[in-house]
Amino acid sequence: MSERMSMGAPIVGIGLGPGDPDLMSVRARTALERADRLAHFCKAGRRGNARTIADAVIGVDPTREIAMVYPVTTEIAVEDPAYAQALAGFYEDCIARLLAEREAGRSVGVLCEGDPFFYGSWMHLWRRLKDRVPVETIPAITAMSGAWTAAGAPITWGDDVLTVLPGTLPAAELARRLRETDAAVVMKLGRNWPKVREALTEAGLGGRAVYVERATMAAERVVPVAEVPDDHVAPYFSLVIVPGDGRRP
Amino acid sequence: MSERMSMGAPIVGIGLGPGDPDLMSVRARTALERADRLAHFCKAGRRGNARTIADAVIGVDPTREIAMVYPVTTEIAVEDPAYAQALAGFYEDCIARLLAEREAGRSVGVLCEGDPFFYGSWMHLWRRLKDRVPVETIPAITAMSGAWTAAGAPITWGDDVLTVLPGTLPAAELARRLRETDAAVVMKLGRNWPKVREALTEAGLGGRAVYVERATMAAERVVPVAEVPDDHVAPYFSLVIVPGDGRRP
Repeated sequence: MSERMSMGAPIVGIGLGPGDPDLMSVRARTALERADRLAHFCKAGRRGNARTIADAVIGVDPTREIAMVYPVTTEIAVEDPAYAQALAGFYEDCIARLLAEREAGRSVGVLCEGDPFFYGSWMHLWRRLKDRVPVETIPAITAMSGAWTAAGAPITWGDDVLTVLPGTLPAAELARRLRETDAAVVMKLGRNWPKVREALTEAGLGGRAVYVERATMAAERVVPVAEVPDDHVAPYFSLVIVPGDGRRP
Repeated sequence: MSERMSMGAPIVGIGLGPGDPDLMSVRARTALERADRLAHFCKAGRRGNARTIADAVIGVDPTREIAMVYPVTTEIAVEDPAYAQALAGFYEDCIARLLAEREAGRSVGVLCEGDPFFYGSWMHLWRRLKDRVPVETIPAITAMSGAWTAAGAPITWGDDVLTVLPGTLPAAELARRLRETDAAVVMKLGRNWPKVREALTEAGLGGRAVYVERATMAAERVVPVAEVPDDHVAPYFSLVIVPGDGRRP
């Protein structure tokens, strides 16, 4: 390890995939096993999804772990400049810690749930590191791919257009974009769920859409949107898929 | 194997990912190693991408291979009813062959490049098989994920909307949809490439778009769209990515 480090081993963003450890790539598993230190994002007092996925493969070893604890989650609105400021400071602290590990001769991996370059927190470290030290990113199966596979619902056929929408968008925009696409995925549900459900109904997709929670994990739930109870509390990492209906000879 | 078969082992669509064998999931590798027969789609006289990816992991063993050779590729236009008819007959033949293997007590996997439920040929077998025998689908890293990672271009930030477009769409529709999204992927280039490039320019994205060919494979090419030579012949499995520009604290 230390020999590789002196030659400039990269800081690696390790994509862990949707949750099932067997759906991790061979390269990701090898990276997990080999890194001297594995950093992960989490909320205060929580282990975090990424670390939980990694635990299933390499077990728990606190001496190898670097917890990067978000200073804010939902206390400040994302539109508030204080939110961007708090996060920017946090990411700067994170890279300082990773660079210190590297300077001490240790190889570092950063755990990323899903695919690191698809709405991933790793991107915020990556863009701060990439011009300073070697970096590498290991792609992974996205949560949405885990979801459409778990739902037994191929997402795009023939010439279908797929639109991926964050549930954070305004209801009217969600409904408009849902009406104008063949297939859709709505990510980041959480407290946006009631609004997303309304937009799906508004777009006439209430009957075709499927709600998926914790795809490929033990607590996986796949439910037609029409059958989700009104008072259901959706976790942030749940999503909705609207399978396309294109050409199928 | 035969014992599992008698208990009804599923016919498995094995997602192989974007091309690099190390980016295959652990489950896909195991499935490759274990199946008695491995079927693959190809054009006449060609080995096919999926089979080439599998070769790198398990080598060549003609006794295990089932080639499913497309009766048509570009000889008939997809809008022509004869195209749908030829393909429907072909898919029926394919499933008859797979079912015969299963009835003979052999386990069967079907090789799928990319992610099987994302524009995959497997979907056409899957929908014919799913109510007759047990089927399973192993998701995989998409070609587009391999591409944005290879390009060092995170695709979606913050609340970015991502639109995935088949290059087969009319130029005006491509340009309109490209203008209305934050991030985009254009798939299925091939002979649609000149039209796609025109649509990108029309939408003012000529400078931001990146052309990616054979992502994660030995012959990978990552080139800004503006620098692709005018006479370049794009393979069908090349694609264009337009990275989003959303919130990045």
